[in-house]
Amino acid sequence: MAVYNFSAGPAALPTEVMEKAQAEFCDFMGTGSGVLELSHRGPQFSSVIEKTEANIRELMNISDDYEVLFIQGGASMQFAMVPMNIMSREEGGFAEYADTGMWSAKAMKEAKLFGDVKVIASSKETNYDNVPPVRRWKLSEGSSYLHITTNNTVAGTQYHVLPTAEDLKGTPLVADMSSDIMSSVINVNDFGIIYAGAQKNLGPSGVALVIIRKDLIEKTPESIPSMLRYDTYAKSGSMFNTPPTFAIYMLGLVTEWIKEKGGIAVIEEINIAKSEALYETIDASSFYSSPVHPGSRSRMNIVFRLPSEELEAKFLKEAAELGMTGLKGHRAVGGIRASIYNAMPLAGVEALVDFMNEFEKNNS
Amino acid sequence: MAVYNFSAGPAALPTEVMEKAQAEFCDFMGTGSGVLELSHRGPQFSSVIEKTEANIRELMNISDDYEVLFIQGGASMQFAMVPMNIMSREEGGFAEYADTGMWSAKAMKEAKLFGDVKVIASSKETNYDNVPPVRRWKLSEGSSYLHITTNNTVAGTQYHVLPTAEDLKGTPLVADMSSDIMSSVINVNDFGIIYAGAQKNLGPSGVALVIIRKDLIEKTPESIPSMLRYDTYAKSGSMFNTPPTFAIYMLGLVTEWIKEKGGIAVIEEINIAKSEALYETIDASSFYSSPVHPGSRSRMNIVFRLPSEELEAKFLKEAAELGMTGLKGHRAVGGIRASIYNAMPLAGVEALVDFMNEFEKNNS
Repeated sequence: MAVYNFSAGPAALPTEVMEKAQAEFCDFMGTGSGVLELSHRGPQFSSVIEKTEANIRELMNISDDYEVLFIQGGASMQFAMVPMNIMSREEGGFAEYADTGMWSAKAMKEAKLFGDVKVIASSKETNYDNVPPVRRWKLSEGSSYLHITTNNTVAGTQYHVLPTAEDLKGTPLVADMSSDIMSSVINVNDFGIIYAGAQKNLGPSGVALVIIRKDLIEKTPESIPSMLRYDTYAKSGSMFNTPPTFAIYMLGLVTEWIKEKGGIAVIEEINIAKSEALYETIDASSFYSSPVHPGSRSRMNIVFRLPSEELEAKFLKEAAELGMTGLKGHRAVGGIRASIYNAMPLAGVEALVDFMNEFEKNNS
Repeated sequence: MAVYNFSAGPAALPTEVMEKAQAEFCDFMGTGSGVLELSHRGPQFSSVIEKTEANIRELMNISDDYEVLFIQGGASMQFAMVPMNIMSREEGGFAEYADTGMWSAKAMKEAKLFGDVKVIASSKETNYDNVPPVRRWKLSEGSSYLHITTNNTVAGTQYHVLPTAEDLKGTPLVADMSSDIMSSVINVNDFGIIYAGAQKNLGPSGVALVIIRKDLIEKTPESIPSMLRYDTYAKSGSMFNTPPTFAIYMLGLVTEWIKEKGGIAVIEEINIAKSEALYETIDASSFYSSPVHPGSRSRMNIVFRLPSEELEAKFLKEAAELGMTGLKGHRAVGGIRASIYNAMPLAGVEALVDFMNEFEKNNS
């Protein structure tokens, strides 16, 4: 039986990546040691981290104006590091945040320790069922940055229009892309900082990818410790101390896999096909329903409800028996959530669609 | 040819651990997914982290007065987190540090951002060739804590006598045990905080083990971000955000392996035998020399010199040809360093001793 893991993160990685990592787990590049047993300063791991950065730069078309950093602590550490490093410490220093879900709210909570947080837009009053349209936002002058969460894993929403340089008028755009990085083509030049915990689209948990415009690295106050300063990572090639070598190695394999697939534009086409197959099934039915505004629907986390919680429990149980796991909605909201990151094959989505149709027929 | 990896860290892990992790890499507990693809809140990973903590508590005989936490960022993050959390913010707040090497000095640098650092003892003037005798230290009253680095990987020194509760008179002892944790039996009750990056004795890089006395968790100022507060990890079972699941899983396998070997007391006996075999070879020869005071010699990192740098280069080259790798001394000091953490089998040390004798014969 094929197993399809729809977990929201840590999530399924490409089968080819897992099999390659397994094959060379105990003997990397003929050393007789696993990659996780090798010195981070030796030639083998140096080639891993260099290749990984080169792949990321190539896939996302990142210019030399940006640094590509690998930092521990996940997106939650970035919630603090962003304001620690780039929030103005002058009287009245502030940053603007769009509140589009649980993770935006967590980011705002940490930022408040370092300055004032202004909420530029929020969908909190309607249970985060949409992302407010960017074109209507009114940016205040003097904001240290504007922070957005591009995809919201709990509510199942996603920006399909992002602020552009023209909208921003010089304010750096900071984006938490933990759950949709490398899932669609974006213009990195529109951003000041992009950060993403790896454990959804990029690899295992334990490393966050941070892409930062070089001028933003120079703003950090002297009082910030070494491990929390972007300049520490930029100056050392993310090797100030021992980096999470195995997580970076896996991230490297995933970027290699994306390249072999044909790059992010190809992945994006597949992601559109996968998510549309699910939304079409939901929309064609009066049994399944989506709580999300059509214009804000996520292509990564497809959230839906059944007529009752009893039916949802039965749905989860029967899906698991067929090898489809991780479909339970976030504990804060309930319901069903199919997380279909880059690594989920179309066949997995097709299996889920078939099951949804069958389950509806048997339970309507 | 048997390969023996003498790398200082990331370092060799037990062969049995590596083989088990490889065997179940793509299918953990019959899920059809690897452990690194599974939700950190699912039943499989919950059992992993609970078992890992239980193993650590059992092996180190840790009482309920202590929390066992898993934190990202390695020991270097702890250099900042310790003072952030427990350094007194009152006027004149200070902590005492013993300066026994490069890593102690790095810890002091971060602490200075949060209060005054007093150096209670230092071997800096003699290139860190010893650890100053604990019994002669004069603790000042009112110190927030006393910080030591129990094993110094660069200089190759180690404390063989640690401060006891009687010496400390109520001052919490904070110990960076990154390079010798679980290598010998200690009394955890003598310590306020023990921390250790995993990548030497415990597992891969990407996770630090922190053992902290519960009363010390309550001292953190409100201004410290969530991810840098010990109470965040204590309240959430180290699951405030996605933990580094694979690194914790590997740490769990290593603790299981130590248990199967018979526990830390048995491991300590083996570590004594391994290190003595090397020091006896050095002391019996006029070709090899140890730069370290005999009473301070590390059982983890055996540092030695040959008569010339040319001979050292030749030694490293020939050793590598025989499958003995990672023997180069730290780039700051040069020479040879054999790191023989728990996972290094006696056979690896015997192979190195044989080679040393042979090399001396051929090159004297």
